[in-house]
Amino acid sequence: MTALRSISIAELHRRVVNVLQGAGIRSETAQSMARVIVAGERDNCKSHGIYRLEGCLRVLKAGKVAGDAVPQLLPGSGPVLQVLAGGGFACPAFELAQPELVARAETLGLAALVIRDCLHFSALWYEVELLARAGLAALSMCPSHAAVAPAGGTAPLLGTNPLAFAYPRTGAHPYVFDFATSVAARGEIELHRRAGKPLPEGWAMDADGNPTTDPQAALDGAMLPFGGHKGSAISTMIELMAGAMLGEFMSAEAHREMGGTRLLPRHGALILAFKPAHFAAGSGRDPIAEGEQLFDAIAGQGARLPSQRRYAARARAEAEGIFLTEAEFEQLDRLERLGLAAVED
Amino acid sequence: MTALRSISIAELHRRVVNVLQGAGIRSETAQSMARVIVAGERDNCKSHGIYRLEGCLRVLKAGKVAGDAVPQLLPGSGPVLQVLAGGGFACPAFELAQPELVARAETLGLAALVIRDCLHFSALWYEVELLARAGLAALSMCPSHAAVAPAGGTAPLLGTNPLAFAYPRTGAHPYVFDFATSVAARGEIELHRRAGKPLPEGWAMDADGNPTTDPQAALDGAMLPFGGHKGSAISTMIELMAGAMLGEFMSAEAHREMGGTRLLPRHGALILAFKPAHFAAGSGRDPIAEGEQLFDAIAGQGARLPSQRRYAARARAEAEGIFLTEAEFEQLDRLERLGLAAVED
Repeated sequence: MTALRSISIAELHRRVVNVLQGAGIRSETAQSMARVIVAGERDNCKSHGIYRLEGCLRVLKAGKVAGDAVPQLLPGSGPVLQVLAGGGFACPAFELAQPELVARAETLGLAALVIRDCLHFSALWYEVELLARAGLAALSMCPSHAAVAPAGGTAPLLGTNPLAFAYPRTGAHPYVFDFATSVAARGEIELHRRAGKPLPEGWAMDADGNPTTDPQAALDGAMLPFGGHKGSAISTMIELMAGAMLGEFMSAEAHREMGGTRLLPRHGALILAFKPAHFAAGSGRDPIAEGEQLFDAIAGQGARLPSQRRYAARARAEAEGIFLTEAEFEQLDRLERLGLAAVED
Repeated sequence: MTALRSISIAELHRRVVNVLQGAGIRSETAQSMARVIVAGERDNCKSHGIYRLEGCLRVLKAGKVAGDAVPQLLPGSGPVLQVLAGGGFACPAFELAQPELVARAETLGLAALVIRDCLHFSALWYEVELLARAGLAALSMCPSHAAVAPAGGTAPLLGTNPLAFAYPRTGAHPYVFDFATSVAARGEIELHRRAGKPLPEGWAMDADGNPTTDPQAALDGAMLPFGGHKGSAISTMIELMAGAMLGEFMSAEAHREMGGTRLLPRHGALILAFKPAHFAAGSGRDPIAEGEQLFDAIAGQGARLPSQRRYAARARAEAEGIFLTEAEFEQLDRLERLGLAAVED
């Protein structure tokens, strides 16, 4: 078993900020990125934790992200807000716009945030959970890299296009789900390749469009959407709503722009925020209490709510710190010491 | 092979209106319902065509729908519209609110329609397609009857909760999808039962929560959501957004209220409408032309767009009329002649 050593949330945050600032990212952006990355480690979402640092540095070294971009919130008063990320990372743009998004949804009942021209490396649950803690229901989506074939197709076109949703609760963490609309994440296929293990049936097709269980053939071919033609339709909807409709890159264009999946994709993002009390007005019912009835019924038949495992990991990290392997500590050391020189071109 | 005979769209509309008015439904509501039902036949969506007439009459006979309800659009000017269906069918409420929903989305970029206290028997594609023809992207959802177990659960709780989406196109029918978030429709399980055929694996569980391929055991037990825990999460989101958040029935309460699945469920519905040009403002791109690029790429790899089959059936019906079996003509005769007496209690 790998030995683990604990680091406090605050100390890990400080070190992640060091890495990012050392690589030339402006201070406010580094702080914002570190909040998201450390939240991933805190919740034991290893795929969105410090593992992401190398990818962030790699795209910076390639000159394909503006580490010094200052996001700009466009003025206006309607239900649609726009924030320009200016080719920088998405998180500081979201943070800048978040109070105004909450305020508009509070006033109008419904608001949408368009994030323009960003690189998105973080989990969407982070954003929708924050909105739910502010009392809003929230739905978030974005394209990614063309890596998934549409149902009935044979070649990569759709992204792994994540979809996240949150609903506020009283006296409990918000209801949150966040998943890729592909059957599996690309990283899971990579893990099978490294382990020399075949993929489960139904995950991928090879470059000729035939079903495959060979991880390398899958990486050279296309992944499949979850849930057959229904999942494929939802992934297509995400391309349309968070790509075409915003006038931002869809996954195929992001893939071309970045020259493959080695660099983070560049695109827009769409976040919808709903004030439940506004939608329930006149019904005589409390929309949050109604939600609790559903959650009770789900738990009552022994089913798990989507983020339960994450919240349990969070409670442990808040009490005992975050546990990392020695290899992870060494990676942090190396990234802090070498900066951009630590990552391959 | 069953002999088919053609009837014009206008003549079928007239006959469906006759049936509904004969059963005591007010004229405007009957017209509105007939538009939806005939659209189902026209597009060869048999499950949402004249097959639905008996269900509409049955719930009327049971006194569980207000056939004379006059929908009422609440005043206001923000992005959230409410229309009170007054315990009547959903379609006249939608038709009443549709022009104002379009106008608000045109002005504000984004609008939502809440339909309160309605019975929904029609396909959601009908509504989102109309909005896309008015130049809007649209997303629609509603709860139904508790018949689906959440992932990891053992008993019916979620509805078959349909989700529909449309995106406008130029020179082509809108992109439209509409599906149940259960693996299969309840009607498909019933068809397997009648044919004495086992269900495919993964469709259902029996009353003890064990997987089953026996159709009767499935009808006595629970259906499963499509796409495992991801589909289950989406179905849960629909319960929350179109049920709890609106202060309207979720599927479990609808099921209790109607005393089972024999009568149509009673609940609310949520429709979101987006003006693409508003969301793309400042991008320098045409969001509709961008959509075409995606549709071309999907078709270019031999994959079908979701509503292609429906639009092909529509073209045929518009040219040659709608083809019905003699049994279907007899059913229309019987319903016209006997009214409510034609349906069992």
